[in-house]
Amino acid sequence: MKCIRCKKEAEVELKSHNAAFCRDCFLEFFYRQITKGIKQFKMFSKKDRLLIAVSGGKDSMALWDALIELGYNVEGLFINLGIDNFSDAAEEKVKAFAELKGVGLNIVDLKKEGIAIPEVVKKTRKVPCAICGQIKRYYFNKVGLDGGFDVLLTGHNLDDETSRLFSNTLHWKIEYLQDQKPLLPSENGLLKKAKPMWRLTEFETAVYAFFRKIDYLEISCPFSKGATFSQYKRHLNAIEYESPGTKIDFYQGFLKNMLPILEEKKEKVANFCKNCGYPTFGELCTVCKLKML
Amino acid sequence: MKCIRCKKEAEVELKSHNAAFCRDCFLEFFYRQITKGIKQFKMFSKKDRLLIAVSGGKDSMALWDALIELGYNVEGLFINLGIDNFSDAAEEKVKAFAELKGVGLNIVDLKKEGIAIPEVVKKTRKVPCAICGQIKRYYFNKVGLDGGFDVLLTGHNLDDETSRLFSNTLHWKIEYLQDQKPLLPSENGLLKKAKPMWRLTEFETAVYAFFRKIDYLEISCPFSKGATFSQYKRHLNAIEYESPGTKIDFYQGFLKNMLPILEEKKEKVANFCKNCGYPTFGELCTVCKLKML
Repeated sequence: MKCIRCKKEAEVELKSHNAAFCRDCFLEFFYRQITKGIKQFKMFSKKDRLLIAVSGGKDSMALWDALIELGYNVEGLFINLGIDNFSDAAEEKVKAFAELKGVGLNIVDLKKEGIAIPEVVKKTRKVPCAICGQIKRYYFNKVGLDGGFDVLLTGHNLDDETSRLFSNTLHWKIEYLQDQKPLLPSENGLLKKAKPMWRLTEFETAVYAFFRKIDYLEISCPFSKGATFSQYKRHLNAIEYESPGTKIDFYQGFLKNMLPILEEKKEKVANFCKNCGYPTFGELCTVCKLKML
Repeated sequence: MKCIRCKKEAEVELKSHNAAFCRDCFLEFFYRQITKGIKQFKMFSKKDRLLIAVSGGKDSMALWDALIELGYNVEGLFINLGIDNFSDAAEEKVKAFAELKGVGLNIVDLKKEGIAIPEVVKKTRKVPCAICGQIKRYYFNKVGLDGGFDVLLTGHNLDDETSRLFSNTLHWKIEYLQDQKPLLPSENGLLKKAKPMWRLTEFETAVYAFFRKIDYLEISCPFSKGATFSQYKRHLNAIEYESPGTKIDFYQGFLKNMLPILEEKKEKVANFCKNCGYPTFGELCTVCKLKML
């Protein structure tokens, strides 16, 4: 198989794009998809101060690397979840990357905050991924606003987005569907949030990380085993295999045809936590409630 | 395994209902689901004159049989599509059933109408299932209205409905999603249409036809090979197997949460065919256009 751009020997085939690329042309393709994803939603410019939430895994590390290559002004934010045999290893990878690239890194230590995930899970008996997500989103927003950043970025890829869309669609969770988009604008004490990698699949991100020799954490969170989204990823991949292009069409079709109808119906958050002042639905935000336990 | 109603030996297990039934109790279950499906949408009563579109296949024959058992006043409508080695065999099955039950049967012969499906497909080069569907819907409506019936019924089951919903959702076809419901009210020259079997799966319908010894046509239409919905049925069944109940939740969730939002946006058909007077989107309806070819 030949690279469709330069006709050299191809190293990777992308059926959904009806394409095959050599290493260099794949990197070009990857950067072009990110740029296209950013421009399509007018997410941010090179003048903006960007904060990227990095877990140490391949997706967020790949995005951080690509944005640095593309010349964006982007600092990292790592939340140490306090999970044994996982969080400290992830922190090391993230620190090493930031040093290697000479870019800023912000760290929040949930043990020091008194709400390490294993303790919170024990105390509340909540689903780990759900409560962890709430805590992380709180700090993403707080660190971003306190540090004067313009946008908070996450490394969600097309598989993350479509499997979430699929799950929310199978159960018709309207309030989640209303927020299912690559750019959430700033409003009411919420920092602007963007997912610049929404056009790229998990496979493409993994290939990028491999080609760029990014040293990421390969183990996954011990709490995430059997997470529900992986089931939907599997089924969507089976459909994609039979009909290449289904995933991106599913997501873009939603953004174009369905989301505008749902957004008209959206109700806004208007409350602020009585303790910390950050946005919440109730009187106190989740993090303040957890700290009081 | 024991029947959950009468504790006799069970003959069929239904995971999505967390149930198992003996033959008699399964039939009771089947009738109850149809009655529930009818009442949930206030589809029709025993005073109404019902016309059921029957193909000779298991679904429409099962529904016809069940409605007769339940005491509804229901005549059949068979459209002979003019397809060799298929249509005449189907007509025989339908005629024999109507005779056996002593119920009325209306027949439309597309050869006599000058628009037998094989010829139409040759002339127009359209996808057979699409053009056939349009022609059948035209005659369903015309025969129903001309004969003074109150409601036109079809034997669509839960798998038909969810696979169509799934396909329309994957491609976000809003105008199709707006019409995706078990009851379409009468409006603007369109007869009221109902799908009383929307709560029952293909498997349950097949079991009913088997238990009731219904003599239906087992071969499928030679044009339908590789029809797109079968792919989605397969994937939905794979999801259902892992999470029993997904299909009915997906469909009911859509009806409850999503459909009301979409219906607000719906535009109505307002045109009537200049030739035959029945509803259409353009100047002439599809059937009149085909007859003029």
